Amino acid sequence: MRAVAERALRTQRDGNDVVMIVSAMAGETNRLLALAHEISATPDARELDALVSTGEQVSAALMAMTIQALGGQAQSLLGHQVKVQTDGAFTKARIRTIDDARLQRTVKDGSIAVVAGFQGVDAEGNITTLGRGGSDTTAVAIAAAIKADVCEIYTDVEGVYTTDPNVCPAARKIERISYEEMLELASLGAKVLQIRSVELAMKYGVPVHVRSSFSERTGTLVVGEEGLETEVVTGIAYDKGEAKVQLAGVADKPGVVAKIFGLLAERNVCVDMIIQSPSRAGDARTDVTFTVSKTDLPRIKDVIEQAASEVGATVEYDPDIVKVSIVGLGMRSHAGVAAKMFGLLAAEGINIQAISTSEIKISCIIAARYTELAGRTLHEGFGLDRTGGG
Amino acid sequence: MRAVAERALRTQRDGNDVVMIVSAMAGETNRLLALAHEISATPDARELDALVSTGEQVSAALMAMTIQALGGQAQSLLGHQVKVQTDGAFTKARIRTIDDARLQRTVKDGSIAVVAGFQGVDAEGNITTLGRGGSDTTAVAIAAAIKADVCEIYTDVEGVYTTDPNVCPAARKIERISYEEMLELASLGAKVLQIRSVELAMKYGVPVHVRSSFSERTGTLVVGEEGLETEVVTGIAYDKGEAKVQLAGVADKPGVVAKIFGLLAERNVCVDMIIQSPSRAGDARTDVTFTVSKTDLPRIKDVIEQAASEVGATVEYDPDIVKVSIVGLGMRSHAGVAAKMFGLLAAEGINIQAISTSEIKISCIIAARYTELAGRTLHEGFGLDRTGGG
Repeated sequence: MRAVAERALRTQRDGNDVVMIVSAMAGETNRLLALAHEISATPDARELDALVSTGEQVSAALMAMTIQALGGQAQSLLGHQVKVQTDGAFTKARIRTIDDARLQRTVKDGSIAVVAGFQGVDAEGNITTLGRGGSDTTAVAIAAAIKADVCEIYTDVEGVYTTDPNVCPAARKIERISYEEMLELASLGAKVLQIRSVELAMKYGVPVHVRSSFSERTGTLVVGEEGLETEVVTGIAYDKGEAKVQLAGVADKPGVVAKIFGLLAERNVCVDMIIQSPSRAGDARTDVTFTVSKTDLPRIKDVIEQAASEVGATVEYDPDIVKVSIVGLGMRSHAGVAAKMFGLLAAEGINIQAISTSEIKISCIIAARYTELAGRTLHEGFGLDRTGGG
Repeated sequence: MRAVAERALRTQRDGNDVVMIVSAMAGETNRLLALAHEISATPDARELDALVSTGEQVSAALMAMTIQALGGQAQSLLGHQVKVQTDGAFTKARIRTIDDARLQRTVKDGSIAVVAGFQGVDAEGNITTLGRGGSDTTAVAIAAAIKADVCEIYTDVEGVYTTDPNVCPAARKIERISYEEMLELASLGAKVLQIRSVELAMKYGVPVHVRSSFSERTGTLVVGEEGLETEVVTGIAYDKGEAKVQLAGVADKPGVVAKIFGLLAERNVCVDMIIQSPSRAGDARTDVTFTVSKTDLPRIKDVIEQAASEVGATVEYDPDIVKVSIVGLGMRSHAGVAAKMFGLLAAEGINIQAISTSEIKISCIIAARYTELAGRTLHEGFGLDRTGGG
């Protein structure tokens, strides 16, 4: 806390107005959630938000005191004081507006404004929270509201990497990346920034600097694509959070597949990739494969099996898969990227079980045991090992 | 927490609208203060209030969840939501207004409103706290704002006693007591209700029922004096929090005593009792005795000694004293109450070192070792041992 306070004061002394957004202290949110779950397995969402928002409130007050103890001026500010107006969706609210007057007043007085992240108030003045990673979202939204030069996000890593260094030791820090690429990487399993904070940064054009709390080194700048050298592949992401479900012997006639996914949608299950194998000539049956979140799987097995029996299919589950994705703006103008990816994987004997693509990413489902091999192969094959752009 | 929630629900089922005011959980306020004092010996008052007010916020959310878990409806409400407007005196703010609209709406919806005590907001929306015992004050202020039938204060004792049962085993619970008497008892060391909550109750005529969280029995009703049978002595209080300071050989001329107390006032020292012994004929010197809070004594010894040396006096301190007080509305119309008190103490050989009186109380400073003896003697002597009024 002291190190962060010192850094903020240095930034201020360099001639900047400084607004800090703080998260709860490590373990605090879980401690509060445990108190709630002692009372009820399904605590009320409004009360949960009133409860867990105290974590950031405590951090903000202590951080303001820390800055003051170092000789600086500071004021803690809460969601209802900065008027972070959100919708009324407790535990996963979305920010609508921020009234920057109080913030401007605080920094013009020479104080560092220390804002409690993750929290807002709805139209009735009820406390809301923004969901996991909400402090990043608060930071970007406030940066947009006050038209900050830059929004620095402090994490425990040095920035955004070309791939997970734990999977591929040749991973290197990306100097600059576009919002679009960052969004894909975040959606595909890169944990460093929350999807919603990237969406907001893109919408308002807020330059985001992802950097380490523990070093002074420059991290990764997330910016608009104008002026960026577009890479064919900027980064590689892995997502081990999905499981594969295969329905074999599905009657191949109109409406059957719609029925299966209709039943899943009723249970609020998000299905990611869907592959329907074309049925062979003369065969009235086909296979339908899809992926769902591993955490959803236990509560939806019954509905999957019910759907399968209604269409006369058998079910197989495979949790031992990984989704490996390559992301890069340059794909839009380069043909053959997908073919190169499939070729690189095939050369290592890695079977591709499913594929999905968007304008700037290609994802493949492969067996989980190939994660590191696929990572190294693709990282080298797309020229990410080298220093500098490819 | 569960027992309190059940009681609130029972009260609601009996046909009442219920507003609860909650304090922080045991130890929570001290835990938060310890965090602040790790950062600074003198943390900023504004930030301290933002910090410690989370204790009541956590309690309110958890209490609302507990009521819901028992099948009831509840909503937690914070200082800024109920609009407990205070002045800007952080850590010891005073309530100015309460907007009862949100409370009325909540109870009309069939919910129990669970209000975080001890906290408010100033005109700028900064979080303030009301100082020690602030939750009692919140309760009485809200009871006044919503014109509640009664304000029940739950404590760990059965009500207000004629005297401290630990000092005098014959102490008995008082059924009804006037605001004025309660105010004197609270000012004189009875811990059961905070002075400011009694002042507010008196100002707005809120009937206060002091009762135990652990039993269903009726406690003590604190009400206006109309219709009360006035007792000569209603209760006896002890205060061991003061120390006696004696300045011997003070020059007996105009301005000297003013000088001493002027110096103390500059240091914000509250002096309680002051006795200036009349100087004997032909003697130009006198003694000045006063009492101050024991906790203040260390930080004011230097100023006392400076004052003493300037007026040529010597200083003696005596911390081993107790202030024993009798309180009763009936004193206003009964002569001889003071004489009877002095006589009862003298009969036990207890020397009275100082006396102060008001319309409805008489206080005597005696040696601390006589506390129990004086308590028993006065309790019996003024007829408080008997069941029923005296």
